Amino acid sequence: MNDMSSSTTAGQERKAPGRPRNAQADETILDAVLGLLSDGQSAASISIEAVAAKAGVGKATIYRRWPNKEALLIDAVRSMKGPLPEPAGRSVREDLIALINANRTPRAQRYSTVTACLLPELFRDTELARMYQDFVEPRREVTRQVLRRGIATGELRADLDIELTQLMLSAPGMIQSMLRLSTSMPEERFAETLVDAVLRGAAA
Amino acid sequence: MNDMSSSTTAGQERKAPGRPRNAQADETILDAVLGLLSDGQSAASISIEAVAAKAGVGKATIYRRWPNKEALLIDAVRSMKGPLPEPAGRSVREDLIALINANRTPRAQRYSTVTACLLPELFRDTELARMYQDFVEPRREVTRQVLRRGIATGELRADLDIELTQLMLSAPGMIQSMLRLSTSMPEERFAETLVDAVLRGAAA
Repeated sequence: MNDMSSSTTAGQERKAPGRPRNAQADETILDAVLGLLSDGQSAASISIEAVAAKAGVGKATIYRRWPNKEALLIDAVRSMKGPLPEPAGRSVREDLIALINANRTPRAQRYSTVTACLLPELFRDTELARMYQDFVEPRREVTRQVLRRGIATGELRADLDIELTQLMLSAPGMIQSMLRLSTSMPEERFAETLVDAVLRGAAA
Repeated sequence: MNDMSSSTTAGQERKAPGRPRNAQADETILDAVLGLLSDGQSAASISIEAVAAKAGVGKATIYRRWPNKEALLIDAVRSMKGPLPEPAGRSVREDLIALINANRTPRAQRYSTVTACLLPELFRDTELARMYQDFVEPRREVTRQVLRRGIATGELRADLDIELTQLMLSAPGMIQSMLRLSTSMPEERFAETLVDAVLRGAAA
């Protein structure tokens, strides 16, 4: 777990002083994983050997950083997403837009098929499923907190279904990315347009 | 194409007189495809040989019905979904609920990971992508028509974003099924609850 969080920090702040070579190697390895997955390889079929070959490093380099394939896969997904923004708390609308945009980084767009490639494996590999859950659940919880706050402040309906609203905010972007659907709006307006469409329903 | 549509009809009305044995064989073969995909096999890794072995039929039996693997994969997806209902036209709400429920058949729920397994292959196999598009596009168009009608009748906002609304109606169910997320509502209320949440925003 220390390995994972340190590699993530390195991946997100790769110019941080102290371990520039490690950060570079981490990123190369994570890119190799994402590349294999987005080429349509199933998570099950990806081996540490294949990742090492694609990244141009030795297997030992990978095992020094990640204890197993599951940890490597989850860290690759983690590296696609930006760090979750701390909700500013000024308005529910603004916070929800920021939370959606936090999942739509250029890296996430580039590897948009990765999540879909990983899904089937989540149902076969309980350890991977547990780690994926540990990764996404805190992110979902931030959105839930914003929605609960909106109910408390009167910005949102008192009878709002939190889980369904969360799904309405997250699923369209996931499906649009996975299926590479074109939309009528430019990417930079996607989150705002979606939040406004949801809020017109959710706003009290 | 004749093969595909006749097999679909047979799959949906498998007690239709005239070709009960063919219909049974079709369903066994399509079940084998869905079983392999939902076990987490990638579309790329599935061979006609593997399908034949799992279905307990000869390869020739499959090739007599489907010209290639792409046609077989798409027909398997088609067999998961119910036939699209003809919108009754009484209310947008009622029609949208029926359209969502048409995608949430027990068979579709049972093989909920299949679509995710197929997605990566759509970006590598242009023939598969074209056939998938030919399958889903008419289904999307029915929803668009209902939304356009709702704008015309005044049930929906005049400035409604048709594509985004379509995504808001389809994506939550897809993600919920793919990730097997639990929701606070029972399955039979999912479509209705979602449509009401969307309409509170979309309704004029």
